[in-house]
Amino acid sequence: MKIFRLHHRIRRDPRIDTHLALVSRIFGVKAIYYSGDKDNDYEESINNVNKKFGGSLKVEYVKDDIKFIKGFNGIKIHLTVYGLDFRKKINELKSKKDALLIVGGEKVPPEIYKLADYNLSVSNQPHSEVGALSIFLYEFFDKKFKKFKGKINIKESEKGKIIEKS
Amino acid sequence: MKIFRLHHRIRRDPRIDTHLALVSRIFGVKAIYYSGDKDNDYEESINNVNKKFGGSLKVEYVKDDIKFIKGFNGIKIHLTVYGLDFRKKINELKSKKDALLIVGGEKVPPEIYKLADYNLSVSNQPHSEVGALSIFLYEFFDKKFKKFKGKINIKESEKGKIIEKS
Repeated sequence: MKIFRLHHRIRRDPRIDTHLALVSRIFGVKAIYYSGDKDNDYEESINNVNKKFGGSLKVEYVKDDIKFIKGFNGIKIHLTVYGLDFRKKINELKSKKDALLIVGGEKVPPEIYKLADYNLSVSNQPHSEVGALSIFLYEFFDKKFKKFKGKINIKESEKGKIIEKS
Repeated sequence: MKIFRLHHRIRRDPRIDTHLALVSRIFGVKAIYYSGDKDNDYEESINNVNKKFGGSLKVEYVKDDIKFIKGFNGIKIHLTVYGLDFRKKINELKSKKDALLIVGGEKVPPEIYKLADYNLSVSNQPHSEVGALSIFLYEFFDKKFKKFKGKINIKESEKGKIIEKS
């Protein structure tokens, strides 16, 4: 599973897009590609999480998103509020070898709806793309969070904080 | 189910906190309380979503969060990266009548960990609070999205956009 985030805006989106990346990392997504503004700080912040907490989520800038999506060798899923309930297709999707999940920004070009093999929604209500991605990946990865071995590891606890450093 | 968002910062958080509210609305959460900066634009943006797309999610500012949480008549759940895997407790929680789900900001006062009846995590990895909330509510509400009747209703579709106005 790889993610494509359309139209990153350097002034407005770093925080939302960091959230998208953190959610993706938790499930062991391999790569996030993004178009729009090239943003070194955004890339670095994700690389720093990998360094500290483990994992290898790659964040990579792509200049021409349409060309990249067209050329992607695998199924293309577009997450959109207008799409079919994702649960109608999720089992079908799990059997596919390689998938690119496209997450839109403010204005998604109509071409994306056509390029996508699936246009899927997580409810047909105004939504957070972070929320939609989280719920989609949670089902796609069978509710399994990836295990990491980092320099810093947090252990679950009923009260307070347990942090292990290695 | 009600949500408490700690320490809203008017310059930094409107977008993230709007995402938290949109996710909450989808599941039919009744209210979001928030502390920190009082933010009329934030409140208005959620009220506008209710007006257009239906629903009655209430957004309400609370000056003294600790006092409010202490006085809350029901169980208090704190969503934190340091907590127990939420799935260990989710069935127990569903049976409770009234619940307040506390979502932290940058720095959560240690008191919150003690006030909470449950400190629960959605993975013990650096996370998006929007992502964590989404997955928590998805399980808590048995994967059911609430149905709304608004002025604008989006219908699911395999390609393109279907919008109904009433």
